[in-house]
Amino acid sequence: MGVTEITAEPGQPTIAMTREFDAPPELVFRAYTDPDLVARWMGPRRLTTEIVEWDLRHGGRWRYLSREADGTAYGFRGVFHGTPSPAGIVQTWELEPVPEGVQLQKCWFEDIGGRTRLHAEVTLFSVEMRDGLMASGMEGGMNEGYARLDELLAGLSAG
Amino acid sequence: MGVTEITAEPGQPTIAMTREFDAPPELVFRAYTDPDLVARWMGPRRLTTEIVEWDLRHGGRWRYLSREADGTAYGFRGVFHGTPSPAGIVQTWELEPVPEGVQLQKCWFEDIGGRTRLHAEVTLFSVEMRDGLMASGMEGGMNEGYARLDELLAGLSAG
Repeated sequence: MGVTEITAEPGQPTIAMTREFDAPPELVFRAYTDPDLVARWMGPRRLTTEIVEWDLRHGGRWRYLSREADGTAYGFRGVFHGTPSPAGIVQTWELEPVPEGVQLQKCWFEDIGGRTRLHAEVTLFSVEMRDGLMASGMEGGMNEGYARLDELLAGLSAG
Repeated sequence: MGVTEITAEPGQPTIAMTREFDAPPELVFRAYTDPDLVARWMGPRRLTTEIVEWDLRHGGRWRYLSREADGTAYGFRGVFHGTPSPAGIVQTWELEPVPEGVQLQKCWFEDIGGRTRLHAEVTLFSVEMRDGLMASGMEGGMNEGYARLDELLAGLSAG
């Protein structure tokens, strides 16, 4: 079971994360960028992800809906900046009701002997917004998503 | 002649700016959002701005080229996040050769008795990128653009 290390320095509008996965970088990158795979691990287990738009290229938009069992849907969207590759994915990330809270995100996939160390960074407009994000329970949902990604990667590696 | 106050706190990946203009917020907003007007003040005087794309709405893309007299062109692009209004414009801003250096920008137009105090904030991925931006001569080009905006606003107010 992977451990997510989260760094949120006091007084900074940024978050940095690392987590290791038992799969090579190319496979983790595929799970991050193939919309059919993304839908299988993104977010907490109770939510169903529907990919609405996924234009994986420089300037391309992405959008997905996360649905509760009762049908309540949360919309997320953003834009890829630069051509996504295992060397890096740079994108914006926005919860649809609050576009003014848009985040910059980047991640890259370090090869550690055939396994992967994921590095992710988030930047927001302000320390207050960063602190709000940390207080929102984001960490729990993210860890649940990463645990689902572990399972997906195990299945893909075996398949 | 307006004075731009720039705050770039040490160790933070952000820049904050304010500047006053002798025109009401609605007119300054128009100069920021009407592509024909944007082309008349954006950037240093030596450059000619060609607006290539300007989709002024939530999720809409913008792109312009800034050309030297010898034809050399610099491309800039980004996306509006949320519906632009005098209460706020939130967007990404990217110099085309370096999409991984994408910035978050927001600005809003405070009414100060029929005049406008512009507030602008920029957030980058890292302090190093912020410091690089500050060292790049951005301030000079920005002040020249704002002086051109003063002149444009004077013409629009008189017209």
